Formats: sequence, structure tokens, C-alpha cells
Amino acid sequence: MTPSATGTPVLGLDLGGTKIAAALFAADGTVLARLTRPTPALDGAAAVLDALAAAAAAADPGRLATALGIAAAGVVDPRTGMVTSATDSIRGWAGTALGTGLADRTGLPVACDNDVRATAGPELAVLPGTHGSLLFTAVGTGVGGAVAVDGRMLHGASGIAGHLGHLPAAEAAGLPCTCGATGHLEVIASGPGITAHYERLAGTSADRLETVASRAALGDEAAVHAITTGAAATGRVLGGLANALGPDRVVVGGGVPRIGALYGDALAAAFTAELMPPLRGLVPVPPLFGHDAAVLGAAALTTTLPLHHPGVLR
Amino acid sequence: MTPSATGTPVLGLDLGGTKIAAALFAADGTVLARLTRPTPALDGAAAVLDALAAAAAAADPGRLATALGIAAAGVVDPRTGMVTSATDSIRGWAGTALGTGLADRTGLPVACDNDVRATAGPELAVLPGTHGSLLFTAVGTGVGGAVAVDGRMLHGASGIAGHLGHLPAAEAAGLPCTCGATGHLEVIASGPGITAHYERLAGTSADRLETVASRAALGDEAAVHAITTGAAATGRVLGGLANALGPDRVVVGGGVPRIGALYGDALAAAFTAELMPPLRGLVPVPPLFGHDAAVLGAAALTTTLPLHHPGVLR
Repeated sequence: MTPSATGTPVLGLDLGGTKIAAALFAADGTVLARLTRPTPALDGAAAVLDALAAAAAAADPGRLATALGIAAAGVVDPRTGMVTSATDSIRGWAGTALGTGLADRTGLPVACDNDVRATAGPELAVLPGTHGSLLFTAVGTGVGGAVAVDGRMLHGASGIAGHLGHLPAAEAAGLPCTCGATGHLEVIASGPGITAHYERLAGTSADRLETVASRAALGDEAAVHAITTGAAATGRVLGGLANALGPDRVVVGGGVPRIGALYGDALAAAFTAELMPPLRGLVPVPPLFGHDAAVLGAAALTTTLPLHHPGVLR
Repeated sequence: MTPSATGTPVLGLDLGGTKIAAALFAADGTVLARLTRPTPALDGAAAVLDALAAAAAAADPGRLATALGIAAAGVVDPRTGMVTSATDSIRGWAGTALGTGLADRTGLPVACDNDVRATAGPELAVLPGTHGSLLFTAVGTGVGGAVAVDGRMLHGASGIAGHLGHLPAAEAAGLPCTCGATGHLEVIASGPGITAHYERLAGTSADRLETVASRAALGDEAAVHAITTGAAATGRVLGGLANALGPDRVVVGGGVPRIGALYGDALAAAFTAELMPPLRGLVPVPPLFGHDAAVLGAAALTTTLPLHHPGVLR
């Protein structure tokens, strides 16, 4: 994937609730520098923007970059450059002018999008031609996603497109979701969701998903059931979405699939069972890009999204 | 909606399992001529293409049109102009070269898409700006749909995008779907699906949805339950899709919503309950365009889709 439209180096930043990653890429995608720093998540949006700008400056001390792309937590609207909404993992993050705030601090044109869409960009880019469609989901502490159809990453109203964890899942019926609704996929299929489901089934506590996975490996039926239920619910929703959107490639990433084959097999079986005839043969696959996907995808945003420029009139 | 990109008249054709509709539009969308003819559905694809060309010629005896758009039943890939797959409602329709077949017969450049997407086009065009997103569903003998995000109608692999009836619905669990899978929305929410659900609940037969609706109006609890279950299942799936895609406008058309408020209220309540905070306030609405939507949308396909030209080398 070539992260630069101009043949010059580009910065990619990835903002999460706990850390900021920054990398400087040559035009051919080679990593020239990379670093991570803690996110000052409790210090407010201005402090976070300052920390992002400092990370960018540290990754590019020679000021080689001609543009900067940022992948950020929260719902981000790339056209306005605003954080439309966000959880409390970064204090005061909702309503932040991410694009112009970072452009003003770095002097660079800035493209911004949410982290899942940015991470999915390289996974879309591997499809042949220019009309490929991708269904990407990241199953971790939440169930996020990104959808690209006919060669374009979808943003939707308020930049909300890709919230695949907030489709209904039968297995979650009646259970409250973080978004305020009930019965959404995320409730039963995220890491904490699987763990909580196990606790309800077993009547005993588990500190985290890895504990549930270990018990499943030892034959604990409740643990097996909680894991396969979350996996199957995810597979079913992804299969239905595949029918509605026609992806060429379906990628399941995030920490939860690393549980292993118990999870992956249940997800794949449920996915396959949903597919309409023209989609048969489609199978969910793990991401091709690992560690650097978010910063690489962030840098590449500068080639596809509107750029927010440093303001002289603000 | 202006169905012509060139300022000259354009033909719009709508091919269904029972009838062909054709209309000639002036560049400003004024209907200059319209007609309908029966579809020779049992006579094979060549006969259907001949009938389409004859309908086009009859609607435009002065040969004013400079392009033709066709909205057709089945899964249609606008890039290749092929019917990717289709049910048996038109014999031998799957695999038909619709674009070039019709271009060769009419001498006109032809744009083609499936009928639901074409019908949804005018509903997308009413949104302000060029980045609007639309979730459109047509609930009738099946549950079809069309999705436009960031100003573009989605097609997806094999042109399959928009098959909203093939997302999972809890209420349909275990019931076989026309697509070969089980538990899809269409099974419980289409007109025949609601009728069959009523028959299962009541243990008595009903010839069609209108009969179920009449019985519901007289207080038949099974009839009320079948209708509200189909409506709520549809609302729930649309609400979840709204979270995943971010529409600015959600349109519910087709014959089933004409049952009345019992249906509409249940659908709207279930839809609203699913929405994430940034989408609150979004409500499903009926289509703005009635009778002429399919032929108008078909004609307008010539402004947005690849054109298939009459071949001299075929």
C-alpha cells in the first residue's frame, strides 16, 4: 500500500485510549521512524491534541512529512474533521475539532478518520481492481468494523458507518448494550461480553476472556458455550451483512479471534450458513496487516480523504 | 430528479415478472410517453429482451431517446450488464447479457441495474448535497432493498448489495428461506411470510395478507401478532443496519406497509429502539415517489452507471 499521493513522506498517527502510535512513512510505505507514547486520556482534548502533535514532531524530526493522517478512537467525520461522539475513554473527546486542531498544531494538512476504518484501509487495498468490497470487523473490548463497497470506504451520516456491533443478535435479546439499546451483537460477542455470558452461565466469575478460554480448553461446557455463542452470533451478523452488501473479502480481526479454533470454527460455520448463492465460497479471514496497520492506514487516509489545512483565519 | 445527463430524452424500462413498463422522459423528468405490456416470462431470455426492445420502440416512436436505462428483476451487475442470478419468475433469466442484449436490439447505449436500486434512486436524489445516505426497503412478496452511502448507490460483489431480507431475524429462527439459508428476515416479514406466520399461530388458513389484515382489524390476536412481529423484525433489522451504515433517510416501501398503522407503528418503534445516539431522531418514512419511481429511476441510471453500447463486433 502506498500511503502518499505526492511521492513525499507522510505521517500516520493512531490514537487509542491508552497510547498514541506515530510512524513516518516513505512514499512506498517503508517505515522511516516509529514510536509510541501514552495518551493523556484524563487531561482533556487540548492536551491530547498537543500530545499527538508532539508525537508527530518526534517521529519526524527532519520535518520531511508533507501531510499527516490520523486514526482516532470515537466516531469521526472525515469531511468536517470533527469527533462526532465518543465514549469516556478519552475525557472530553466528543466534539473535538480533530482535523483543524491537529493541522494548526503541526502546520500540516491533516486527514482523519476513526481507527477501525483506517486499519481496514490496507485490507481493502489488497483487493484487485478498484471496485472491491470489504467487510472488516475488529472483535475486542467492543465489536467495531468498517465497510467498503465498490472500492470506497463508507462513512455515512455523522461518520457512523461500520458500527457492526450494534446490529441485533438473537443471543443478546434483552441485554443492555453500551449504546443504550438492548440486544446488540456487542453485548454477547465482545471479549467482555463473552466473559459476562460465561459468568451468567457458570454462576462463577472470570476475570477476563483468557480465563474463559483456558477453562474451555479444559472442557468447561459453559466456557465452550459462551465462546461459541459469541462467535456464532458474530458469524451470523457478518453473513447477513454480506448478503446485504456483497463483500469480496471478509476480515475478522481484533483480540478475541486469537482465542483459537473453537472461536474461528464456530464463526465460520455460522457465517457460511447465512450466505445467499452468489456469495457461496466466501470465508472470513484474519487480517493481513498486523502491528503497523493502523498507522499505515492512517497515513494512507491522506490519499483518499478531504484534507484539513492549518488555518490563518482561526 | 433529472434523468438525463445530456439534455436529451431518455427511455426508462422496468422489467418485472408479470409486466414491462416503459416511459420516455424529457431531460427535466417530464413523462412524454408511458405504456405497460405483459412480460413473456415463460418464453426465455431472448423473448424477454425482444419484448423490452419492442416496448422501448413503442414508447418512443419518434426515436428521440439517446440512451436507455432498465430496472430489472433479479441480481444485476451494472458493470458487466449481466443478470448474475434470478428466481424462476422469468424463465432462463439468470446469466442473461441484459446490457448488451438490449443495446444491440435498440441501437441505444444501455445502463442496467436491479429494480429496487433503480426505484431507490429518486429517493436518494431528494437528499440535500452530494453525500447523502439512504436505506431503502421494499416489503412485498419478498423483502428487498437498496443502500446508498456517501451519495453512491452500493452494488457490491455480483451486484448483490441491498438484499436486506437476508439478514438474520430472531423471530425467523429455524424457518427456511427462499435463498436456501434459515432464519432470514424475509421468512417472517414479507407478505407471504406474515401470512404463513398467521397460519401457524392461528391453525387456520388465510389466502393472502389482506385477509390477515382484515382479521387483525376485527381483533384477531394471531393476526395482530403476525403483523406486528413482521413489522418489528423489519424495524429491528433496519435499525441495526442504520447503526452500521449511517443513513440520513430510511424509506420503507412496497405493498406490505399499506396494511396501515398497526404495521407502521410496530416497525417504527422497533427501529427507534435500535438506534445509537448519533442517529436518534431518524424515523422510517414512506417513499416520496409512487407509480413512476421505477421507470424514472431506470432512466436516471444512464447518468450514473456504465453504459453498454450496441456492438458491431459481436
